[in-house]
Amino acid sequence: MDLNLTQKIIAAHLIEGEMVSGQEIAIKIDQTLTQDATGTMAYLEFEAIGIDQVKTELSVSYIDHNTLQVGYENADDHRFLQSAAAKYGVYFSRMGNGICHQVHLERFGRPGQTLLGSDSHTPTSGGLGMLAIGAGGLDVATAMAGYPFYVKMPGVVNVRLHGRPAPWVAAKDIILEVLRRLSVKGGVGKVMEYTGEGVAYLSVPERATITNMGAELGATSSIFPSDAVTREFLTAQNRPNHYLELLPDADAAYDEVVEIDLSLLEPLIALPHMPDNVAGVSEVAGRKVNQVFIGSCTNSSYTDLMRVAAILKGKTVHPEVSLVIAPGSRQVLRNLAANGALADMVDAGARILECACGPCVGVGQSPPSAGISLRTSNRNFEGRSGTADAEIYLVSCETAAASALAGEITDPRGLGEPILINMPEKFAVDDRMVIPPPESGRAVELVRGPNIKPMPAANRLQDKLAGEVLLKVGDNITTDHIMPAGAKILALRSNIPAISMHCFERVDSTLARRALAAGGGIVVGGLNYGQGSSREHAALAPLYLGIKAVVTKSFARIHMQNLVNFGLLPLVFENETDYDGIEAGDQLVIENLLENLAANEIIINNITRQESYPVKHSLSVRQMEILKAGGLLNYVKSKV
Amino acid sequence: MDLNLTQKIIAAHLIEGEMVSGQEIAIKIDQTLTQDATGTMAYLEFEAIGIDQVKTELSVSYIDHNTLQVGYENADDHRFLQSAAAKYGVYFSRMGNGICHQVHLERFGRPGQTLLGSDSHTPTSGGLGMLAIGAGGLDVATAMAGYPFYVKMPGVVNVRLHGRPAPWVAAKDIILEVLRRLSVKGGVGKVMEYTGEGVAYLSVPERATITNMGAELGATSSIFPSDAVTREFLTAQNRPNHYLELLPDADAAYDEVVEIDLSLLEPLIALPHMPDNVAGVSEVAGRKVNQVFIGSCTNSSYTDLMRVAAILKGKTVHPEVSLVIAPGSRQVLRNLAANGALADMVDAGARILECACGPCVGVGQSPPSAGISLRTSNRNFEGRSGTADAEIYLVSCETAAASALAGEITDPRGLGEPILINMPEKFAVDDRMVIPPPESGRAVELVRGPNIKPMPAANRLQDKLAGEVLLKVGDNITTDHIMPAGAKILALRSNIPAISMHCFERVDSTLARRALAAGGGIVVGGLNYGQGSSREHAALAPLYLGIKAVVTKSFARIHMQNLVNFGLLPLVFENETDYDGIEAGDQLVIENLLENLAANEIIINNITRQESYPVKHSLSVRQMEILKAGGLLNYVKSKV
Repeated sequence: MDLNLTQKIIAAHLIEGEMVSGQEIAIKIDQTLTQDATGTMAYLEFEAIGIDQVKTELSVSYIDHNTLQVGYENADDHRFLQSAAAKYGVYFSRMGNGICHQVHLERFGRPGQTLLGSDSHTPTSGGLGMLAIGAGGLDVATAMAGYPFYVKMPGVVNVRLHGRPAPWVAAKDIILEVLRRLSVKGGVGKVMEYTGEGVAYLSVPERATITNMGAELGATSSIFPSDAVTREFLTAQNRPNHYLELLPDADAAYDEVVEIDLSLLEPLIALPHMPDNVAGVSEVAGRKVNQVFIGSCTNSSYTDLMRVAAILKGKTVHPEVSLVIAPGSRQVLRNLAANGALADMVDAGARILECACGPCVGVGQSPPSAGISLRTSNRNFEGRSGTADAEIYLVSCETAAASALAGEITDPRGLGEPILINMPEKFAVDDRMVIPPPESGRAVELVRGPNIKPMPAANRLQDKLAGEVLLKVGDNITTDHIMPAGAKILALRSNIPAISMHCFERVDSTLARRALAAGGGIVVGGLNYGQGSSREHAALAPLYLGIKAVVTKSFARIHMQNLVNFGLLPLVFENETDYDGIEAGDQLVIENLLENLAANEIIINNITRQESYPVKHSLSVRQMEILKAGGLLNYVKSKV
Repeated sequence: MDLNLTQKIIAAHLIEGEMVSGQEIAIKIDQTLTQDATGTMAYLEFEAIGIDQVKTELSVSYIDHNTLQVGYENADDHRFLQSAAAKYGVYFSRMGNGICHQVHLERFGRPGQTLLGSDSHTPTSGGLGMLAIGAGGLDVATAMAGYPFYVKMPGVVNVRLHGRPAPWVAAKDIILEVLRRLSVKGGVGKVMEYTGEGVAYLSVPERATITNMGAELGATSSIFPSDAVTREFLTAQNRPNHYLELLPDADAAYDEVVEIDLSLLEPLIALPHMPDNVAGVSEVAGRKVNQVFIGSCTNSSYTDLMRVAAILKGKTVHPEVSLVIAPGSRQVLRNLAANGALADMVDAGARILECACGPCVGVGQSPPSAGISLRTSNRNFEGRSGTADAEIYLVSCETAAASALAGEITDPRGLGEPILINMPEKFAVDDRMVIPPPESGRAVELVRGPNIKPMPAANRLQDKLAGEVLLKVGDNITTDHIMPAGAKILALRSNIPAISMHCFERVDSTLARRALAAGGGIVVGGLNYGQGSSREHAALAPLYLGIKAVVTKSFARIHMQNLVNFGLLPLVFENETDYDGIEAGDQLVIENLLENLAANEIIINNITRQESYPVKHSLSVRQMEILKAGGLLNYVKSKV
């Protein structure tokens, strides 16, 4: 049978299940990655599993989120992570070495392999022909322990790229076009597979921009073929031996097809406050801009920043714009510092930040109040920038640089002839800031600072579940709503009791206190609940606060898995209109849960309103077992 | 009469008073500078004075403290400051352009002129033969309004530098030697004037390292002659016309003389937690280091960082050390980015931060808990780094770089032949990030964000002053104790009601609430109360909390002036042993204050203990008038 790329990689890694769309499968994980905002929990979980060494082919622990160090907590996390990496056989990418996805693409990603990362933008390495999936930290911890990764067999969407990109149309504009067409829910349960002759015009980092931001479709992953372009990139990274040609079979079947003619695209922009709220840059040109941020795992590669430097060279940033640039990796920074491009940016007035996620995740460079910020990053959720009333627009590097000079949203097509940047034949490769683990880490002591607290224990599912509706929220609630990021709160990622007090604070600042006072309860949500970041803190904090169940119109994949992993019951209304009947404060009860869960015939009784709502779940048998066992950690400990 | 340097400049600027040590004089101010952590208040104060345009020859508003932008407050301050600069005729040095003192030295400082800055390290420009003095924001605001600066005529200490610095002995080691000999109180009421043939071996930035850290002596200022070295520096900065030879007269008299033989010095280090706690590096070599920070207004010049790059080149930072480098200015960064030195640092594993104060003032890069940090900055006060239990050591760039490689405190003399760095004949001069004011700023609107609140009004001195002793503290209390810095609290510098809640929080976290509840009271302190930073928030917050008087064994100059400026009465025990008798909670009363103030015969009655303490003040007639008028702002409004 002819297979598409996704099927080929899954088939080569299949451990359990059948490759039938929607059925749960288990796949072998070759590589894992963690970053510091999710990593401390992941390694505490790995420690709890009780294994000496990771069983993956390669695991890397990156520091890229919390690098500001406003207080001792970040530095303590870095120290803990460095000790955990040495102890458990994990490569440790030091502070300042760059953003996990950019560095992984450069140095570790391999065509045909599987990668599981505790960051929702892990699919970035799909730009190399890798099946790369984002997951909660506990899923990554169990993968490091050699346990397979369970996921529903995704549908595969073929995005066929035709023609050559129009002048000044960047990879970012391609993924914005996909988002415009499919929306932030359009990729749920699917892998986006890019093919067509247009693929050849895209370098690996450009492909990675597209697979990276595929996360905003809600997709399980996104992937490009591994071809001559891939070989060139791996060769320039001094690892030609990692190259493997990987193409879909000629008659591969797909569940859906999306056709995009690159020659017809124009520069696009995501307007506040969702990445799928896309318009043409020309439609909103002229709006005044306060800040421009160029960087993030989406757009901070060598070629990205060389284009920016070429646009800025000899010009001056508009006096009322703060232009901040964070190169994606030390390799990128090193190349720019050596070839003069960094000096060009500094000359033009750019503020150069450390190679890290930074502003993208609200760690610094919050815009002024009610400010307008143009960013090359991937998410423009309300408040994520650290400024509640800021308006974030998402654009390509070219649009960002043109706008920084003009002081207003500017179509880069007015800049004249497009800029051609050649990929270097050889990058200046230098892995000294990646510390390999010692041969045996048994003697290494984990270094725990006072902010690193044990995890809360998950509960076993009981036969009767009762509680008050503590909060009712609308559609498209993100994990940023549930568990905000930003420098102040991210510093508490290793301290669940402390961070839980910020749970839902941008939606209802009383929630945490009310939940603790009530001894827990239930949350009701709308469509696509839990989209966005993979942070398992969006499940850990509700667990700590005593939340027992979340009832919604639908869930985002990673977050639903995170709820299950920590023993919180995710339920979906059978009739969406029942959502309208429930109000915060209502008392809900579910009886005979254990029996009805298996039958998938669950009734919620609303004691307050004397109503009943049929609800269902999309749990696999294994996920039900996990809930009954009191979370994935307990479940895996009994298996490994 | 033969004059020393200090006397020459004062004589040329004298408006009132006589040049008799200890007597109050008024001098004309040619230039002012502000930075963003003190600047918002300074311009709000200038606005309150009600003048259209600054009356100085040159005023510059720098952004260098709060550049992390963890929340909207910093960016709002930047916007306010930019609008205020345009409105009032002030040059605006943008975010990322560098640390005020480094940039001022490079681009604006002029031999023979006077500079008043709302930052305690303003004496940095003394390296150019300028009389540069730190003061509170209100003093700078009144100087911008054309009002002279009042100060006690300083004693002048002649520091004679003999011989050529021994190998690997840096300018930093010279000022550490002065601190070792004279202590953090040794410069109070004095100007440190450097002469001797050793001066010729020091470049202007090296001289500036010494005048900068003269602030840690409590000195009013520090100054070097303006000579051939100065001319070369100004020529390399493309402003030879600003050069003016300025030497002390041959038989100039001094109040004190300190002799230092540079050829006998060795690399020095200030141990925790005071800059005068100085030892030889060799005495503490081998102590493990977690972090090394190279930067700050003390040590971030081109030659500083070129030496660092030369030491790091081809080597790798120790795997357990985080090395962070913040170039002092965009000019420095630009030069390093163009000549390959920045690439050498990145190669070695240094983390490059934005050109700003950063870690020095606790804005980011806080060490891990109980961590050891080696820094090239100027203050190692407990807690200032943002980590309460961290230990900060102060060293030269050479010692810092050597230690970052070794992972432990390391004497740089083990590195072999000393490194010779030549000053460039021409720096890459580029002032595009300094925005000149428009010809008329009348139409400019001040942009006020929601965190920018009006100042509290100062009170007129009453004839009877009564209150509870809310807090009793020991010797050498710094303005960091009174009003902590760090990214979180610095963000509130424009919001006195909010920042006041952090007043004294590292000493007694209940103080602010107790003061508000009690309707104010009195603070009792030991020797050298209010040393360190010039922040007037250390007076504004107590004012807001209702503090009416501070009674101590002695005051640091800038802080005492700040207290007067905001109508708080600074008193000094006539008998230091009376300090021992008072306890927190005691009720104190002063009667007939107005009459007794003039006579300088004031009695504090301790109602609780039925004791009386004679106290005095060192207020000039003018300062008494200010207290009676209800602070400097009211006083100046009636004068200008």
